[in-house]
Amino acid sequence: MGLLNSINGPADLRSLSTRQLESLAAEIRDYLISSVSRTGGHLGPNLGVVELTMAIHRVFESPSDTVVFDTGHQSYVHKLLTGRHDFSALRKEGGLSGYPSRGESEHDVVENSHASTSLSWATGIATGRMLRGEDDRHTVAVIGDGALTGGMAWEALNNIAASPDLPLVIVVNDNERSYAPTTGGMAEYLGRLRADRRYEDVLTWGKRQLLYRTPVLGRPMYETLHGVKKGLKDIVSPQGMFEDLGLKYLGPVDGHDLPALETALRRARDFRGVVLVHVLTEKGHGYEPATTDEADRFHAVGVINPETGLPLELSGRAWTDEFSDELLALADEREDIVGLTASMLLPVGLRPFAERYPQRVFDVGIAEQHAVTMAAGLSFAGLHPVVAVYATFLNRAFDQLLMDCAMHRQGVTFVLDRAGVTGSDGASHNGMWDMSVVGIVPGLRLAAPRDGAQVRQALREAVRVEDGPTVLRFPKGTVSEPVEAVRRQGTVDVLRDLDADGESHPSPDVLIVSVGAMAEVALGVGDKLASAGAGVQVVDPRWVLPVSADLVDLVRRSRHVVVVEDNIVDGGIGEAIGKAVREADLLQPVWCYGIPKEFLAHGSRGQVMERVGLTPDVIATSVTRHLASD
Amino acid sequence: MGLLNSINGPADLRSLSTRQLESLAAEIRDYLISSVSRTGGHLGPNLGVVELTMAIHRVFESPSDTVVFDTGHQSYVHKLLTGRHDFSALRKEGGLSGYPSRGESEHDVVENSHASTSLSWATGIATGRMLRGEDDRHTVAVIGDGALTGGMAWEALNNIAASPDLPLVIVVNDNERSYAPTTGGMAEYLGRLRADRRYEDVLTWGKRQLLYRTPVLGRPMYETLHGVKKGLKDIVSPQGMFEDLGLKYLGPVDGHDLPALETALRRARDFRGVVLVHVLTEKGHGYEPATTDEADRFHAVGVINPETGLPLELSGRAWTDEFSDELLALADEREDIVGLTASMLLPVGLRPFAERYPQRVFDVGIAEQHAVTMAAGLSFAGLHPVVAVYATFLNRAFDQLLMDCAMHRQGVTFVLDRAGVTGSDGASHNGMWDMSVVGIVPGLRLAAPRDGAQVRQALREAVRVEDGPTVLRFPKGTVSEPVEAVRRQGTVDVLRDLDADGESHPSPDVLIVSVGAMAEVALGVGDKLASAGAGVQVVDPRWVLPVSADLVDLVRRSRHVVVVEDNIVDGGIGEAIGKAVREADLLQPVWCYGIPKEFLAHGSRGQVMERVGLTPDVIATSVTRHLASD
Repeated sequence: MGLLNSINGPADLRSLSTRQLESLAAEIRDYLISSVSRTGGHLGPNLGVVELTMAIHRVFESPSDTVVFDTGHQSYVHKLLTGRHDFSALRKEGGLSGYPSRGESEHDVVENSHASTSLSWATGIATGRMLRGEDDRHTVAVIGDGALTGGMAWEALNNIAASPDLPLVIVVNDNERSYAPTTGGMAEYLGRLRADRRYEDVLTWGKRQLLYRTPVLGRPMYETLHGVKKGLKDIVSPQGMFEDLGLKYLGPVDGHDLPALETALRRARDFRGVVLVHVLTEKGHGYEPATTDEADRFHAVGVINPETGLPLELSGRAWTDEFSDELLALADEREDIVGLTASMLLPVGLRPFAERYPQRVFDVGIAEQHAVTMAAGLSFAGLHPVVAVYATFLNRAFDQLLMDCAMHRQGVTFVLDRAGVTGSDGASHNGMWDMSVVGIVPGLRLAAPRDGAQVRQALREAVRVEDGPTVLRFPKGTVSEPVEAVRRQGTVDVLRDLDADGESHPSPDVLIVSVGAMAEVALGVGDKLASAGAGVQVVDPRWVLPVSADLVDLVRRSRHVVVVEDNIVDGGIGEAIGKAVREADLLQPVWCYGIPKEFLAHGSRGQVMERVGLTPDVIATSVTRHLASD
Repeated sequence: MGLLNSINGPADLRSLSTRQLESLAAEIRDYLISSVSRTGGHLGPNLGVVELTMAIHRVFESPSDTVVFDTGHQSYVHKLLTGRHDFSALRKEGGLSGYPSRGESEHDVVENSHASTSLSWATGIATGRMLRGEDDRHTVAVIGDGALTGGMAWEALNNIAASPDLPLVIVVNDNERSYAPTTGGMAEYLGRLRADRRYEDVLTWGKRQLLYRTPVLGRPMYETLHGVKKGLKDIVSPQGMFEDLGLKYLGPVDGHDLPALETALRRARDFRGVVLVHVLTEKGHGYEPATTDEADRFHAVGVINPETGLPLELSGRAWTDEFSDELLALADEREDIVGLTASMLLPVGLRPFAERYPQRVFDVGIAEQHAVTMAAGLSFAGLHPVVAVYATFLNRAFDQLLMDCAMHRQGVTFVLDRAGVTGSDGASHNGMWDMSVVGIVPGLRLAAPRDGAQVRQALREAVRVEDGPTVLRFPKGTVSEPVEAVRRQGTVDVLRDLDADGESHPSPDVLIVSVGAMAEVALGVGDKLASAGAGVQVVDPRWVLPVSADLVDLVRRSRHVVVVEDNIVDGGIGEAIGKAVREADLLQPVWCYGIPKEFLAHGSRGQVMERVGLTPDVIATSVTRHLASD
């Protein structure tokens, strides 16, 4: 940590020599590999942007200039260069966030982990600077080629093109793969730009000699000789799409050639208008295991051996695996089942399906809106689509779920992975809004399976529904231990019955409704209440929306109802049950335990669940208090 | 109605002569003008697509082939050609829908009025046909140039480009304006394509002679001479962006030249792969008042004089006007206030602001996602953005509201026009989900003004909030009569107090909470309950989220609570109040009256409100029943 320790902010970078900069890049890379392999985190994307981030911070003056990272997991190098050198508790409670964080640094602006937002943020910031007469303050958006497949990015580009004078530099970080190899027209187009050596040759022109090697003299010489704008125009040739949109294009630039990067960024900055700088980087650059990994496992890693890149902890079977295996079995049985995902083929478990039936699985890029409406179209054509995305990303396609799938009664199955508290990825990755969002969609059926067997069963039930959308949601990580039902009453699984502990209550004092993976917590609450003498029944409705008549019947025979869910309370399953209970003219109070309506700082899932009080102790204490006052 | 009456389906079109087709087009245009001027509806867009729709139905064979209209208000001609000739009750209860409707015809597929979805629908349908071995069934998407500014359309284009073999024809209906003149890079690009005469010349080549004038001989001659694919390639020259994306482009075609249209569509159909056909149409074609109207009033009209195009009924002052005027006043006072909208400058009332301060108002195209995140960026740069959109369209940007505005605590004001039941525009236009959606956003403040004065006051309060998003929502149409408060208790307006009718109850039997424009209904309920002897208080919290401590205090002093809102009950304000009441350890029942969770067929606002039971009679009867059983 020789040089890195001396870097407390971007200004410290600017006094370093070329040799020192090269050493610093190597040091940063070593640090990331050794550190992230201990803590887990996004390794590949950050190894790819070491030189790019250094160049940005040498050319632009953050925080007067603003740097916006799209999908902020590529901000580790930025953190190191802005004085945050302790990665030992990365993504852990109290440690650095895995994303930019305004709480950590004045150099951080956008904390969002959802892709394709940076151009809109940057447009707003640059436009604001112009309006306030601060157009000497530049805005830089760093966006990956994958994020350019998102519709928001297009909306922004279309608008940026109409404001060519904005002090805005768009850095396209083209690593030829987003989470997975990028497909689609944009990828093909970028590929052709990459392949066209002409532009590289043009760019090479004089860059090291004039601008980098002799920075003091080179700049005025260059500007005198060519004029800033003319200089840029000289190297910008017709570029097809970007030019069609009216965007000035500069590149492609070797993203691991610091002098080339700085030259390009300086030209873009001095152009005083919107310039798109096309930078070619290699994800995982400088780390052999990452660059040779076809499956893109190094996009985000758990704790690994830094030498081999292999995981040190083998976690158990994941929720995703249960879905993945069952879907494959269903795909064998039914030709009409197709799969869709949005740049998440591997993490959501669609890869085995795609490998066996490549024609039947569609990875549409970071394009949830399109995925959902395309699914409606596939359903109209007589197929049964299964759309597998992270719970947090369905928020992007609420309108399409509502209008295209539900209003048109298309049989589409949504599988929401990483639902509930994900924890270490921070506020924007938690899947804590999904049940509230899908809960207001007419005709939609929602299942929350509590274990692997239930995932399989719910999926089988879901793909039989052809008159509207269904949703399955389950958490991140290792699948829960199987929880056997004592019996099934109608459609509801009874997990703990009244006489479980030998009692014989005529009706339960407390009916605990467990939602999905909260079964263990709900049973824990049941244990505690029963120990205190209450008659307790714990049930799992399995299909939680619409609230079933069977569940209402169980409420009718109970005195109090407790609902435990890992969604926000507002608009959650507890409130839906409360509404069904009132509509049945029942007066039983329904007490809802879920996540509070707030953004949750990162920490482990257990820590966050503890923090929000979703533990047997806290819930049982609260219920006991309610019971005493009721 | 000579010819039109003989057209009961697309097949009937195919036997008509050129002269008959011309007569039919004129007849359709006359009918639309006379009929829509009596009923109201979308006039301009449909006058623009008369020949285009005829050509599509002559070349393709619906319903075996599928025609998807983007923003379905351009489907009137389609309705006429598929046997629906009675427009007398257009958009009225029991009459034809103003959009495609599967319930009306097997030729209707997508009912959605939200823009930019057609390419995703069509991709799904065409992909489904391929997978099922039905690739002789073509899919045609008709999308306006305005809708191409939406991100979804880009996501779809990017994916379509990767599947060049789909039996899919994309008709870009380029009328050079969406709701308003289209801006942005895409518009510029289309403009250049339009201006490049070369393509028109190439397209003209032989088209009338070979293919149209001698249809029987011409087709085989053409195919023999050139081969279908070669023929297309001959006329397709490099087109920049579309070609960069790998899309075959054909055009531009004169959208009012039926032979030219048919030729182009036949070539596209016979290419057996994705082709984009660029058609130039004139919105309002053939109707002088529409084509010369700069303000685009003929996009959608009320009842008008068909000769002059002037409105016959002058409605009163609109909710929108109250907002529009007050925003203009605020803009005069505060330089930091800026306005944003998504292709809705006129209908949401931003035009006066834009005219006075053109640099401070941004119409981003049909791009709600970008608008919301750009607003976050503007806020970060020190401005206060006011985002004005229809309530139903905010659904498109929920993720951006949640992540970019709320999580980053940016002071952005959202003004949701057309909230609640809009009625005649059908299921997808009702603003009945907005309060549920924004209600799950942490830190968000929501106001529902009950009259014009409250709109003004709430707006003034909203733009003072700088630490998070605020939302105002109000309905479509003429603003409610002013409802004076009896007094203000804390932040809550008391609209009817206990002693209003001379009674002296120690505490209200019923506290009626009125949300926004429901004040009149809520007061009506109050009258009825009071007549029956109940002690009634009617209050308007004005700011309905978060639920205020003042409102909870009022609940504390009451015995029962009734909430009346024009949002779905699920996740609505009633449930939020119920939650606040329970959290305050109060046991008062909270009865929620709102819209049921279902898609509402079109009708007038009053008819729909009656249908869903949001009338004083129905609510009072229900409350009385509750009171009796409680």
